[in-house]
Amino acid sequence: MCRWLAYSGSPILLEELLCKPDHSLIDQSLHARLGATTTNGDGFGVGWYSDADTPGLFRSVEPAWNDRNLRELAGHVRSPLFFAHIRASTGTAIQQTNCHPFRHGRWLWMHNGLVRQFPQVKRDLLLAIDERLFPSLEGSTDTEVLFYLALTFGLEHDPPAAVARTVGFVEETGRRHGVEHPIQMTVATSNGTNIWGFRYSSEGQSRSLYFSTDVRTVREQHPELLELQRVSDESRVVVSEPLGDRKGVWNEVPESSYGVIQPGEDELHPFEPIAP
Amino acid sequence: MCRWLAYSGSPILLEELLCKPDHSLIDQSLHARLGATTTNGDGFGVGWYSDADTPGLFRSVEPAWNDRNLRELAGHVRSPLFFAHIRASTGTAIQQTNCHPFRHGRWLWMHNGLVRQFPQVKRDLLLAIDERLFPSLEGSTDTEVLFYLALTFGLEHDPPAAVARTVGFVEETGRRHGVEHPIQMTVATSNGTNIWGFRYSSEGQSRSLYFSTDVRTVREQHPELLELQRVSDESRVVVSEPLGDRKGVWNEVPESSYGVIQPGEDELHPFEPIAP
Amino acid sequence: MCRWLAYSGSPILLEELLCKPDHSLIDQSLHARLGATTTNGDGFGVGWYSDADTPGLFRSVEPAWNDRNLRELAGHVRSPLFFAHIRASTGTAIQQTNCHPFRHGRWLWMHNGLVRQFPQVKRDLLLAIDERLFPSLEGSTDTEVLFYLALTFGLEHDPPAAVARTVGFVEETGRRHGVEHPIQMTVATSNGTNIWGFRYSSEGQSRSLYFSTDVRTVREQHPELLELQRVSDESRVVVSEPLGDRKGVWNEVPESSYGVIQPGEDELHPFEPIAP
Amino acid sequence: MCRWLAYSGSPILLEELLCKPDHSLIDQSLHARLGATTTNGDGFGVGWYSDADTPGLFRSVEPAWNDRNLRELAGHVRSPLFFAHIRASTGTAIQQTNCHPFRHGRWLWMHNGLVRQFPQVKRDLLLAIDERLFPSLEGSTDTEVLFYLALTFGLEHDPPAAVARTVGFVEETGRRHGVEHPIQMTVATSNGTNIWGFRYSSEGQSRSLYFSTDVRTVREQHPELLELQRVSDESRVVVSEPLGDRKGVWNEVPESSYGVIQPGEDELHPFEPIAP
Repeated sequence: MCRWLAYSGSPILLEELLCKPDHSLIDQSLHARLGATTTNGDGFGVGWYSDADTPGLFRSVEPAWNDRNLRELAGHVRSPLFFAHIRASTGTAIQQTNCHPFRHGRWLWMHNGLVRQFPQVKRDLLLAIDERLFPSLEGSTDTEVLFYLALTFGLEHDPPAAVARTVGFVEETGRRHGVEHPIQMTVATSNGTNIWGFRYSSEGQSRSLYFSTDVRTVREQHPELLELQRVSDESRVVVSEPLGDRKGVWNEVPESSYGVIQPGEDELHPFEPIAP
Repeated sequence: MCRWLAYSGSPILLEELLCKPDHSLIDQSLHARLGATTTNGDGFGVGWYSDADTPGLFRSVEPAWNDRNLRELAGHVRSPLFFAHIRASTGTAIQQTNCHPFRHGRWLWMHNGLVRQFPQVKRDLLLAIDERLFPSLEGSTDTEVLFYLALTFGLEHDPPAAVARTVGFVEETGRRHGVEHPIQMTVATSNGTNIWGFRYSSEGQSRSLYFSTDVRTVREQHPELLELQRVSDESRVVVSEPLGDRKGVWNEVPESSYGVIQPGEDELHPFEPIAP
Repeated sequence: MCRWLAYSGSPILLEELLCKPDHSLIDQSLHARLGATTTNGDGFGVGWYSDADTPGLFRSVEPAWNDRNLRELAGHVRSPLFFAHIRASTGTAIQQTNCHPFRHGRWLWMHNGLVRQFPQVKRDLLLAIDERLFPSLEGSTDTEVLFYLALTFGLEHDPPAAVARTVGFVEETGRRHGVEHPIQMTVATSNGTNIWGFRYSSEGQSRSLYFSTDVRTVREQHPELLELQRVSDESRVVVSEPLGDRKGVWNEVPESSYGVIQPGEDELHPFEPIAP
Repeated sequence: MCRWLAYSGSPILLEELLCKPDHSLIDQSLHARLGATTTNGDGFGVGWYSDADTPGLFRSVEPAWNDRNLRELAGHVRSPLFFAHIRASTGTAIQQTNCHPFRHGRWLWMHNGLVRQFPQVKRDLLLAIDERLFPSLEGSTDTEVLFYLALTFGLEHDPPAAVARTVGFVEETGRRHGVEHPIQMTVATSNGTNIWGFRYSSEGQSRSLYFSTDVRTVREQHPELLELQRVSDESRVVVSEPLGDRKGVWNEVPESSYGVIQPGEDELHPFEPIAP
């Protein structure tokens, strides 16, 4: 179980969302409320888009709450689109190459949940990854395998379809191995312009996922977040757990659906796996 | 806030107490029940006596719950007397030189609690440390300063008196700086033969401390701990929090007192600081 | 490029070979003389047999020369058979799951060298691993893949044959991918009783490998190694680089051959890959 | 022994100097040529000024050559004034709080060299630090003590005088303890506008220090450094070891002198300690 956050909008210091809110992501690393585990101390990661060709990645195996470099980065780096993730391992090793977000070219990917019985189905899932992408795999976690499956199934061209095919393939593979509910997930992915957020699980009881309401409400309810007072009306936050208790700030993403944060109107659609 | 454990008796694998009990020390690193904090994820340490001149130390800044080397060590090293500690920092840096236990020659020292307003009183405390010992200080934590004060005040010759003088000096120094309750502590120290355990706080509400009853009760209540079935009747465990819920296994050390685990009869005495 | 050491004989403190000789393995982490790289600072590992069912492992991503826990362990743990390895990555990530030695049940495995063009041939090599063993893979390095191939090809029953089939398979796979010299290696493996050491490379110019002469010579030449003065005449050390400059202490293992350190007479044989 | 680099000028990506030159600072972490040690693998640090009130710090105990986060940061963060340092410990612990640069408010400080017999003189040096600054000390290294002495002696008002008084005090203290040559140093410090660089040693044989010639020469000699082609003519680099072999790019700072990189004309002056 993990917690994550994605932001898109006017460039802000990362700390505005990672450190400052009452129930910031760093606070959630010690005291998550809605998750399957309270402590998310098995590493963390931040991915941020700048003017470079690919997003920057800062990932570490230390608990987020006591990593000084994370606070320094968050206090000095501004970005118009960034991901942050705190990890509670579901069994795979605590190592940098298993920390989210994962990156491929301009794409970022992060995940809360798990592929059930991953050790048993891993080989079959790996075999389905495009051979040209295979050498880029570095870690041992289910999330990275999901990412490379999605890339194999066309993530860069049609993210919702690629994720639907990935989930369909994982469910089919899992069931072939006798796994009742093969996948549980909230996933975020981005190309630096849009953010796609998915909420789904084979059992129909998915981990929580929220997106912020229009920025005017956020500003009124979070006057202490100074940078947010100045961001554009289009700015949005997607989170696995709200950053505070203020009323009207957070909307829950419905079960089995996905949203798109993008220039212009945002979207919210039902999500359904596509069987192989 | 921290949690710790000290064992003396027949040589056992460290894992027998660190990993195997229901509420083992490693479990307490994620889910402490009696402490000021639930999570003790800011590093850990183990000190064990072998046939070498000085005890071995294994200390790390990783959370104990996901450190593989700790589990390996605990599963392969036997010792007749060992200390283990999991840390929740009260402000000083997360670094190996701040992890307990601390060692000087044959002596080990570990602590749960804090010197209040430590940044303000630190300079005065440091100045009282014996100049010949001063170069051995390596970290920045209150506990190491307490240890070197105790060494300065004669720990190696009369531990209870040295600790009483240390506490008296810390209280006098703190009060001079306007600190109402200068110290809160449970402390364990050993020379490889005896273990001394202290429970004291300036406010008279000290952190919890327990010692095991006679081994026959422990054996009956913890049949799953195979190695304990074979240890001598003199074997004892001192803990800041019980390793399980079994009745009759744990005795609370009274407020403002100290105990001595030693060959022959153990002792329990009142503890009173000695003012400078 | 890496450096490694294997010991079998009377139980000794690990530090006797890891830290004390002039050109100890820890010294080699900063100043290797015979290797392709001078610095071997990308992590290290120690595997040692005790009375537990499986050997203990202590692996870390820190450079060996400044890891205090390694010195503590080496100064307090005795073993009759141990492996030690210092790593210089040939490209894969610096993480604990990529540190040697690798362990499977009672078996240890470590390696100096590389599978050339590993990213290109990795998928084909992985596919040849026994499906029941596949879930145990944890890292991303060529060495771990070699180990699991050897296990697949019968390491536990006939080590020389299993390694010969592994090398034959890697060479065949590499050449199919257009790699001229697919493998370069010195490898050590053990079941806790015997040590097998292999020296081989597709190009016939393998990394160096030495074994100690009879202990009487070692004792005479290394009077400073006190523990070695007391070990049995059967005790042996195998190293990728001598631990000092003393005459007559080290014999070079010939090109394309393997040796067996075992109770009774040791053996030295030619090594030839077995093509699939 | 360590290596360091300071840059002031038009904002550039840190990687332009940390990673890209033939003999970049990261290359020097494995292969320093001019230093007392070849390998500088005991941690590193980067300090950079942004639009925040205080400079950012990124410090780690890993060797610079294999730290991925360092490369990510260097590839995504631009700064008009930054420090970078790779460490080879002269005895104090490998921990983040001992990594350079050190920071106090807007000031950064880094050092190559050592205070000789530091364990013996440390107590006397600590006692001279302003009591209000004392609680900010976090590490155990000589360099941090030098920094706080300089702050005590007025670094923020007159850096050359404060450093001269610091060195004078260290020399006087060392000699009182029988140390023949108490200090060896090249030091850089900055307030975010100017950089002061000092080269001095008690024995008159100081570690090397270089500053770049006018940018036009650098551009001609380093056409591969694309960002440098666009920087202002005032941009300057100060290094403990040149970043390459090109002719005319680097000027050696003379023995016992200091330079100031600043808006307007740079300066170079003799440096002489001021005895207490």
